[in-house]
Amino acid sequence: MRVEIWSDIACPWCYVGKARFEKALAAFPHRDEVEVVHRSFELDPGRAKDDIQSVVTMLAGKYGMSEAQAEAGEENLGAQAAAEGLPYRTRGRDHGSTFDMHRLLHFARERGRQEQLLDLLYRANFAEERSVFDDDERLVELAGAAGLDPDAARGVLADPEAYAAEVRADEREAARLGATGVPFFVLDRTYGVSGAQPAEVFARALSRAWGERPRLRPVEGGSGATDGRDGRDARDGGDGGEVCGPDGCAVPQR
Amino acid sequence: MRVEIWSDIACPWCYVGKARFEKALAAFPHRDEVEVVHRSFELDPGRAKDDIQSVVTMLAGKYGMSEAQAEAGEENLGAQAAAEGLPYRTRGRDHGSTFDMHRLLHFARERGRQEQLLDLLYRANFAEERSVFDDDERLVELAGAAGLDPDAARGVLADPEAYAAEVRADEREAARLGATGVPFFVLDRTYGVSGAQPAEVFARALSRAWGERPRLRPVEGGSGATDGRDGRDARDGGDGGEVCGPDGCAVPQR
Repeated sequence: MRVEIWSDIACPWCYVGKARFEKALAAFPHRDEVEVVHRSFELDPGRAKDDIQSVVTMLAGKYGMSEAQAEAGEENLGAQAAAEGLPYRTRGRDHGSTFDMHRLLHFARERGRQEQLLDLLYRANFAEERSVFDDDERLVELAGAAGLDPDAARGVLADPEAYAAEVRADEREAARLGATGVPFFVLDRTYGVSGAQPAEVFARALSRAWGERPRLRPVEGGSGATDGRDGRDARDGGDGGEVCGPDGCAVPQR
Repeated sequence: MRVEIWSDIACPWCYVGKARFEKALAAFPHRDEVEVVHRSFELDPGRAKDDIQSVVTMLAGKYGMSEAQAEAGEENLGAQAAAEGLPYRTRGRDHGSTFDMHRLLHFARERGRQEQLLDLLYRANFAEERSVFDDDERLVELAGAAGLDPDAARGVLADPEAYAAEVRADEREAARLGATGVPFFVLDRTYGVSGAQPAEVFARALSRAWGERPRLRPVEGGSGATDGRDGRDARDGGDGGEVCGPDGCAVPQR
């Protein structure tokens, strides 16, 4: 089963929601058969890379709230994070573009290090003093800590087109699936869960989606596998498609 | 709608099947909303990179057929290819490992050039004299012709782990879906078509899958979008997940 999670590094509920989802996943009996894929979603896609503000100033300016209200919001989020055992600096965090971090996360996915890098990016953004914004060497350092080759990460960051198409494709896909906010969880493209729901909601979603895993249906005239899980040889089904397999290329008798 | 096509560059039916599928896709009214993703499948995954044989010798050795029988098989495949307007050298082709080509196709996908590169790899393998096997510079040249940066392609080929995890993940996924041969077409993870079927079968599969595009179902307690296509704001649905959106991070009243 595949769970896709759309999120942004700058999204506090994504940071909290990931921990809640993982609590449910850790208790899920079929957890070893669940593949988790993190997908890109920018809350502030128009922001230039060098346009950095403090979170509180950004919130106050964008939503017309007082800085005290913005700080209270951060305190509230910090308490929610703490309840999941997550560190959260409620004062002094920055806000900026996350586009390059998303590009790096796609690179990390390709190297099997996406989960590690995302955790480190969240931790760096929400709990550590040094800003993650407009600081390629900071991201290179985090990539290295996630097990990626630092030079390769530096190369990705230096090339603005590297993995940019994948970030944008994820964002188009989110819109198509009806997500306007994050975190947004999609299980086998069948069930959707929006928001940092309690772990029990994720547990229910996992069970339900597991019980209804889609089975491929063959198109008549085609010999598609009728059931992806019964181990049947797709070449034996249906009326004989022209396929190549480990035993050579069959030429069906018609 | 997403169509995933598992194939191997060394698979004649994949080369032919791609053309047949594309004929159906070109006539499909919703073709602009179809995303095609090519996935990796090696017919001969254990083969070392420098282990190259002529196709005819390989077929004769592996299946105990005479070289004349193997040549007749190639003639038959060449005729099927010609019927789709595809060039095919029936004599003198090589057989070897396609792992590096699959890695390069994943790199190309990330740069939006997968389709172009796959077409060039097929053409090179099936129709051109110079072998594509164990010749990194040949692949770099094809990558360049597909619009990729030759140095970046060279870097991918030089690093045996680059995109290797993605190739293996595709192959595991194929097994999970019940595919033991290629080409194998999966439409929105709902319908499967195995083999180089006639274009009419692909046309039927496209229509059917289009009519039954999956709609996300919300998990109760979660506010997942109920329908990926009606543009509803996922934040308004259900009982209020904790999400961040373009308008900030909502804290639901519970």
